Formats: sequence, structure tokens, C-alpha cells
Amino acid sequence: MPVAPRTQINILQQPTSAAWLSQAIANLDIILLDHSHCERKAAACALNLMFRYPAHQDLVTKLTAIAIEELEHFEQVNRWLARRGVPLAPLNAPPYGSSLKQLVRRQEPERLLDSLLMAALIEARSHERLGLLGEHCPDPELAAFYRGLMASEARHYGVYWVLADQYFERSVVQERLEEMATVESEILATLHPEPRIHS
Amino acid sequence: MPVAPRTQINILQQPTSAAWLSQAIANLDIILLDHSHCERKAAACALNLMFRYPAHQDLVTKLTAIAIEELEHFEQVNRWLARRGVPLAPLNAPPYGSSLKQLVRRQEPERLLDSLLMAALIEARSHERLGLLGEHCPDPELAAFYRGLMASEARHYGVYWVLADQYFERSVVQERLEEMATVESEILATLHPEPRIHS
Repeated sequence: MPVAPRTQINILQQPTSAAWLSQAIANLDIILLDHSHCERKAAACALNLMFRYPAHQDLVTKLTAIAIEELEHFEQVNRWLARRGVPLAPLNAPPYGSSLKQLVRRQEPERLLDSLLMAALIEARSHERLGLLGEHCPDPELAAFYRGLMASEARHYGVYWVLADQYFERSVVQERLEEMATVESEILATLHPEPRIHS
Repeated sequence: MPVAPRTQINILQQPTSAAWLSQAIANLDIILLDHSHCERKAAACALNLMFRYPAHQDLVTKLTAIAIEELEHFEQVNRWLARRGVPLAPLNAPPYGSSLKQLVRRQEPERLLDSLLMAALIEARSHERLGLLGEHCPDPELAAFYRGLMASEARHYGVYWVLADQYFERSVVQERLEEMATVESEILATLHPEPRIHS
């Protein structure tokens, strides 16, 4: 199954607000630290799905590649933190991830579908927001770094979408994706007071 | 802190029995499938420690590299499975891992020390056993693959040992390592009836 063109998998219901961008630009170090956590969580998300579905050959193959790439990005973000003198530190997660997780149904095969679509939505939103930072970040080298990440991150949400499309009927995928994307945009409609990639 | 020479970190109390090698050679496909699971678990183990100690800079840096390498090995083992026509499938874990986990004390900082030493012991045992397969596997190409993995796997147990040595007094590390290594060898003294990397 070929990857759908990007316009067809541009799955976000609402674009990120200007308020988020202002908050992020005013707090670049915290955003970078949160970004580090996001890359590690993205790797863990891929790995968790590989543990849950160890016999799904295509899922395992594709998510191994994603997990490796996320860990490489994690390394790169951590080098940027070191360069800016920001020590690694824990950071409270915004409600975004846990709110999305509540959408995942518990029984199979719905659990697999929802998990793939949740990951697709998170990747799509990260892609959009890193793109905004790549465009508007006042540090030109850091902006270039964000644009560089974009080039390789762009594929991830497509991979999750293609896996969903492979294991489920397309009409089922589309309908559930719309439902989940609506909630995803609703979660972000109110800006979280702490600056985060998904605030 | 330089890495100690290999002789000093050859931490296993008892060598693997001839019985394990015979069992493994007679069940190469199952061993390969279990090996795939082991590589994925090793990546997850590194990632879990990175989640638990997000501000331990050196641990995070070194375990990111290990997690990436384990996932690359996972990919390579899975290609070998495909080549031999063995489908990915779940497999009951032998008691080895859960028995070792019972040694990990719950309070910090003992939990960190024990977790690092448990990982070091598992890596050391894997290293030893993959070495035996590299030497005795009747398929010369598969044997060469095991020897190739050895070259890069050899460092992992050293990394866990060095991290333990960095965060704790050496005498404390040595004493606890001896205690845990004794139990590790005891667990393997009775061959598990199902062929596994750690049967």
C-alpha cells in the first residue's frame, strides 16, 4: 500500500493558535527540554506497540525504524540542551497525552486502531508545531535544527496512518480518525499555562 | 572514568553449561526467535532506566546509544528470522528475567545500583552465550552473524558496570555484584526445559 500524499493525511482538525507560538518562542529552553521528553516518549510509544503486537510483522518492522529515529532525535535535542546550558530535568507533562489516552478503547481490535490513530495525531501535531518553530524561532541555528527534524519527522504520522489503513477498513479508519482528531483539537483549544510542545 | 579492562568486568560466576549449548544448537529457530525478543527487551530496559532517571546526564547519554544499538540488532535478528522462514510470534519468557528482577531492591539509591547490575549481568550472559553460538552454530553464516553481534555487544555490559561505578562506591558495587552474580549463576544451574537464550 503506497503512502498517501501528504494532503490526504493532513489529519489535524484545527491549526495551532498564535498564542501557543508566542508562549513557545518566549520559553525556548523549556520547549527544548519538553521536546527532549517528547522524543523519548515517542520512542517508548513505538516500542510499547511492538511489545503488544509482537507477531504483527509490518507494525514491528516499521515501528522499529521509528523508535530508532526518535532516539536519534532525542540525542540531537539533548545536544542542543547541553549547548544552551540547560540541564536534563523532569518536567510535568501537559494534560494532552493523558487526555488522548482516554480515547483508546480497551478491547481489541479497537485498541490497536485507536493506539495507531492516537500516535498519528500526536506525530501530526508535533510535525506542525516543530514546523512553526522552524519558521519563527529567533535563533537561526535552532530554527534550522527544527526544520531539519521536520524533514525526517514528516514521515512518522504517515507510517501510523498507513498501518491503521493496513489492518482496518479505510472507512472505519476515517470515521474514527475524525472523531479522535476533533477531540485532539478541543484539548488544545485552551492553551495550557505551562509552555510545552503540546500545551 | 575509563572503561575497566574486560578481564575485570568478566562478572559471571559460572560459565554456561554444555547442556544449554546442545539444547540451543538443536533448536536454532526458537533460539533466534527468543533472541529477537531479548533484543527488544534490552532496548526497553535501557529506555525504562532513561525514564526513571531523566536527569542523570551520563546514564541518559550512554543508554540512548545502547537502546539504538539493541533496536538495530532486533532488526537484524528479525531479518534472519525472515530468511529462515520463521514468523514473528510471542514466546513464553524463561524464569531468568523475573527471578533476577526480584533481586532489585525497591528504595533508592539501591534500586538504581541493582538495576544497573542486573542489566550488566544479563548483557554479560548474553555476550557469553552468543559467543558460544558464534563458535558452535552449524550454519556458518548464522555463526558469523553471532560473532558480528558479539563485536558490538561486548561493550554493553561494560557500560552498565561503568555507570554503576560512576554513581556508587566501587566497594559497594563489587560486593553487590558478587551477590547478584551468584544468584544469576544459580538460576541457570538448572536448565529450563524450553530452549531460550537464558534457559
